[in-house]
Amino acid sequence: MDQHMEPVFAYIDAHSEEYIDLLKKFCSQPSVAAQHLGMVEMAKLVEDQVSLLGAKVQQVPTDGNPVVYGEIDGGKPWTLTFYNHYDVQPPEPLDEWITPPFEPDIRDGRIYARGAADNKGSFLSRWCAVDAYQKVYGDLPCNIKFITEGEEEIGSPNLDPFRIAHPDMVRTDGIVWEGGSKDINRGPLQITMGWKGLCYVELRCRAAKGDMHSMNAPIVPNAAWRLVWALRTIKDENDHITIDHFYDDIIPPTEEDMAYLEQLNYDGDRVRAANGIDHFINNLSGIALKEKLLYEPTANIAGIESGYTGEGSKTVIPSYAFCKIDFRLVQGQDADRVVQLLREHLDRRGFQDIEIIQHSGKNPYRADTKSRIVRAALRNAEKIYGMKPSIYRNGAGTTAMGSFCGPEGIDAVSFGIDHMESQIHAPNENIYLEDYINGIKMTAAVMYDFATMD
Amino acid sequence: MDQHMEPVFAYIDAHSEEYIDLLKKFCSQPSVAAQHLGMVEMAKLVEDQVSLLGAKVQQVPTDGNPVVYGEIDGGKPWTLTFYNHYDVQPPEPLDEWITPPFEPDIRDGRIYARGAADNKGSFLSRWCAVDAYQKVYGDLPCNIKFITEGEEEIGSPNLDPFRIAHPDMVRTDGIVWEGGSKDINRGPLQITMGWKGLCYVELRCRAAKGDMHSMNAPIVPNAAWRLVWALRTIKDENDHITIDHFYDDIIPPTEEDMAYLEQLNYDGDRVRAANGIDHFINNLSGIALKEKLLYEPTANIAGIESGYTGEGSKTVIPSYAFCKIDFRLVQGQDADRVVQLLREHLDRRGFQDIEIIQHSGKNPYRADTKSRIVRAALRNAEKIYGMKPSIYRNGAGTTAMGSFCGPEGIDAVSFGIDHMESQIHAPNENIYLEDYINGIKMTAAVMYDFATMD
Repeated sequence: MDQHMEPVFAYIDAHSEEYIDLLKKFCSQPSVAAQHLGMVEMAKLVEDQVSLLGAKVQQVPTDGNPVVYGEIDGGKPWTLTFYNHYDVQPPEPLDEWITPPFEPDIRDGRIYARGAADNKGSFLSRWCAVDAYQKVYGDLPCNIKFITEGEEEIGSPNLDPFRIAHPDMVRTDGIVWEGGSKDINRGPLQITMGWKGLCYVELRCRAAKGDMHSMNAPIVPNAAWRLVWALRTIKDENDHITIDHFYDDIIPPTEEDMAYLEQLNYDGDRVRAANGIDHFINNLSGIALKEKLLYEPTANIAGIESGYTGEGSKTVIPSYAFCKIDFRLVQGQDADRVVQLLREHLDRRGFQDIEIIQHSGKNPYRADTKSRIVRAALRNAEKIYGMKPSIYRNGAGTTAMGSFCGPEGIDAVSFGIDHMESQIHAPNENIYLEDYINGIKMTAAVMYDFATMD
Repeated sequence: MDQHMEPVFAYIDAHSEEYIDLLKKFCSQPSVAAQHLGMVEMAKLVEDQVSLLGAKVQQVPTDGNPVVYGEIDGGKPWTLTFYNHYDVQPPEPLDEWITPPFEPDIRDGRIYARGAADNKGSFLSRWCAVDAYQKVYGDLPCNIKFITEGEEEIGSPNLDPFRIAHPDMVRTDGIVWEGGSKDINRGPLQITMGWKGLCYVELRCRAAKGDMHSMNAPIVPNAAWRLVWALRTIKDENDHITIDHFYDDIIPPTEEDMAYLEQLNYDGDRVRAANGIDHFINNLSGIALKEKLLYEPTANIAGIESGYTGEGSKTVIPSYAFCKIDFRLVQGQDADRVVQLLREHLDRRGFQDIEIIQHSGKNPYRADTKSRIVRAALRNAEKIYGMKPSIYRNGAGTTAMGSFCGPEGIDAVSFGIDHMESQIHAPNENIYLEDYINGIKMTAAVMYDFATMD
């Protein structure tokens, strides 16, 4: 591989200014889906840019912003897809930006702009890789697809409909997903091969028509107490989830899974110090900490409210209470099944008065570690970055990767150009230019190996 | 008694227009302590009015609004005190008033105005009773004191300091307290001989410096869960308070207490229907319902909040959670002791991370049922109202009566001119003129019996 890619890497280095200018151009175009800002212009920019590679490009209409779909079909045996999105998070609060969010600024080796990391830098690192390879060799080693949606930051409401409506566009032999960071201190590149599922529910309880004077508390049901009692049956103080049959379907970590954990560097002390955390749950550390973080499901109260929450005291019996819970799901679990288990669990304990509203449900997803795209990613990181990668058998969070790739049985991997202080979704979003250039090289190398290895 | 009081009652009837005009005059003067509105003028109005009875009156300075103290010392064996307050609740929301709050309006036998019930009508029912008796007999049967504070609606912050600073003014043989209502449907007069205590606390938990992404939920402590788990140790699903030793100091109801319950008419079905309550706690009814309402303590979650409580979903680990709890305390319990028990209880279970903030603490209070003032009240209600009274050995709520009378060992009783739809603290506050006139007669009769009975 090395010899074959050297000219491509040299080309990338020689044209780094041009590629950085391209990133500045993309980041200068606002594209805030939540605010309907610049979406038409941005979709056109992506369409034109992908066309420059000789791709057949179209804007595929959806109920929201179009998906920009591009395809370079060279009649090769393998097809590789790059998933990205062209929308960004709102830039607010504006006064916390050192330089304006849509006026990219380079300082101390970093480029600052909304979208620099998430995910215009990511998109262009894929584009530039294809461009450089083409410029050096004329032909590409595999067929390429670009799927670039415009609604990721508002929850990708039309991505599943797109997947279902266009199986031909979705069909592929592997996906390089958006995003991807480096470890704390800009350490090793993180390579992620899957994510947990997410089941987000709201529990609601109404116990009376309106709040009543708390002198009636001996006899009038209190919605807040009802909810507290119901919640206590969901998880105990050892952080064990106590919903009946909750763990039944889980596929436990394999030896291979545990081997991935072993090699993973997770700096717990630093995470605790940075976030003012006295101790992790159950005082965990070492391999047990990593195992719980990555391979165990959660039942997280994300919010709860009932009754009087202002200053001082008010003596009232809350008639209404609600809480929001997100369940992160691991291999074997199913989001809808979890809601069903929760309903049965609450009913069995007399909590028919607790209503369950399901806000979302995504199943867990993991790529096959033996798949071409995973193997191609794993074998190139150390060569490019000079350090063994941090391999996440699955991430602790959830992305659209799961709902997009899972049902189609597509293998996907994520690696990218962010770092731990990229301020994604926050003011002063940034990436290191060095990480951007390395990301282009990494993508090019992965593409070549994906196409040519055994 | 009857013969002696007949001329007084006749005088009251003959001068009812005059007494109603006086109520209109008082209700025309705004006196909103929370808004510093008209307090000086109102204190002067009370001072002048009490002076008309020949009382020695002074405005006793406090850190807030003065207490108007008046004394008619006729060298009698017994001294009776009338406690009232000259401040009212804010009248807002103004647009819900049919007629303006400080322009008293008489419609369908009721007078509508802020303060008509709470508590200018109550104050004047005492004043008019003394006036009428004086007009008929020249002399009063007992010494009289008027203690009229100006901060009841903002929590009486200077009433305890007044009590401690002026033991001579507080000294008495019995107090008729403010307020007092009638049963639902304007049924029997309620006579109340005490109240529960109140211990209001806030529980606070901080688990991290700030909220974190919920992908970290497997390992990062969640303040909302900590609070839920702590709360679950405070009360169980049968509404049994499970704080260690919480019930130890309680003096159980006596046979006399239970006899009072027996005679008490409490229309549970109507309360449930009016408030949209499916069933009372533990499906209680009858005597058990009344016993729990009046003779059992509570641990009421008045409010709880943590994390994300807006629309839709946000995946966050709350770093901070708080809840407000009001404990209503019964005979034998002490507010400070309850806080101490709660602290020890939580510590014993590893909840040192739950902070307790005490907002207020008032001990329970009950008058001696054999005291002169209680006996005088009980023997007159049926004669004046034509129905046996509803006797509350203690109310389910809490008033300043307890902290004022309890420490001094003074017996107090409450009966008054409100009814169940008096809209106290709400728009269109009102009382029936008939109840006002009967309240004057009741007060006069109680004063006479208090002074003269064995």
